[in-house]
Amino acid sequence: MRNAIPNILTAVNIVLGMFAIIFTFQGEFTCSALLIIAALVADGLDGRVARYFGVSSDFGKELDSLCDLVSFGVAPAILAYAFMLKDFGMAGYIIAAAFATCGALRLARFNVNTGSVKGYFMGLPIPTAGCVVATFVILGMKPSGWIFPLMVAIFAYLMVSTIRYPDFKGKGGEPVRLIPVAISVAVGVYILFLTLNAVLFVPFFVYSLFGILNTLFGLFDRHSAT
Amino acid sequence: MRNAIPNILTAVNIVLGMFAIIFTFQGEFTCSALLIIAALVADGLDGRVARYFGVSSDFGKELDSLCDLVSFGVAPAILAYAFMLKDFGMAGYIIAAAFATCGALRLARFNVNTGSVKGYFMGLPIPTAGCVVATFVILGMKPSGWIFPLMVAIFAYLMVSTIRYPDFKGKGGEPVRLIPVAISVAVGVYILFLTLNAVLFVPFFVYSLFGILNTLFGLFDRHSAT
Repeated sequence: MRNAIPNILTAVNIVLGMFAIIFTFQGEFTCSALLIIAALVADGLDGRVARYFGVSSDFGKELDSLCDLVSFGVAPAILAYAFMLKDFGMAGYIIAAAFATCGALRLARFNVNTGSVKGYFMGLPIPTAGCVVATFVILGMKPSGWIFPLMVAIFAYLMVSTIRYPDFKGKGGEPVRLIPVAISVAVGVYILFLTLNAVLFVPFFVYSLFGILNTLFGLFDRHSAT
Repeated sequence: MRNAIPNILTAVNIVLGMFAIIFTFQGEFTCSALLIIAALVADGLDGRVARYFGVSSDFGKELDSLCDLVSFGVAPAILAYAFMLKDFGMAGYIIAAAFATCGALRLARFNVNTGSVKGYFMGLPIPTAGCVVATFVILGMKPSGWIFPLMVAIFAYLMVSTIRYPDFKGKGGEPVRLIPVAISVAVGVYILFLTLNAVLFVPFFVYSLFGILNTLFGLFDRHSAT
């Protein structure tokens, strides 16, 4: 029974993801987005519970990736489509499909490279990308022109990029630089100043932005050291 | 470049699966079902192309499972929901989510057990389960009462069952018995006799039925041998 608990939490993750897709169907976008965030909680728990009980398994890891793709790849892509991408014709189709495809590529790469790098993730983790999209929908703001499709496309790309993101569970790895932290937190505070509704959006956005800035500053460090 | 071809086909698989979900949204159920079958073709090609070029990879295998879950787990579940399950309240939600969840469990089990059994699959393969649902929708027939929800639930269960299904690529394994072949083919011909629209549905249904009958007759064989 103890062995089953983490896998049950993983199953809760995919069930919430499926419910999110169905709620999107019914036009309940905020509900759908909240379900994606609830899936993140279940996803955050399963690995911890498995390690706590000492029952981590290959089966659990495979299942975890599969469920992550549904809750943080497919569900946010469909939500983004129904929220705004549907107004962009064929481009909307392609960007929604690209988001899920990049999520799958990210997960496959992570599973194959597992253990080879410690302390950071290569590319934005799919739960963060999915939650950026979901929490943006909660904001209820419909940006003009191509801003939203472009945003979804950029977050799809960040997943398959080689940008390094800190893994708070690991030790060492990529150094966290002060200036990128300061800039991304300042941007986060500024967004919160504009609208307190962004309270769920800001943490995911700040983390995403930080990775980009930290990599840029890292390139600068290495360049100046040569 | 040659190394990329099978992975591009796998990506085509998930893209078609995502398009299927979006078409379901727009009420184009037949289109959605045809896209799921198109995804099956892409899925059938990627492994063969990889073996032909001698470029099978762990990355490709991980990606393949992830994409299969979207095209044959999530897309058919959402199609089934929009087609009929939506009329069954909470039960509709749960059966749609269960179908995708069982698909994920099936894929995770397959990936962990890979290589341990040759010549047959344990549980109905997820592409078959997905295509049974998709091709049933093409029939355009809405069965009365709980028949459709029950059918979806049974096919979800068949995926995680221990029923053995022949793998035409492998050799040996579970023997194929004559009587189960005869009965399931006869049922298939009978359905075709009722409606020629079932031409896509019948192959998947016959394969699913055959596995059940073959396992039942297998139990009988072993029993009589004791």
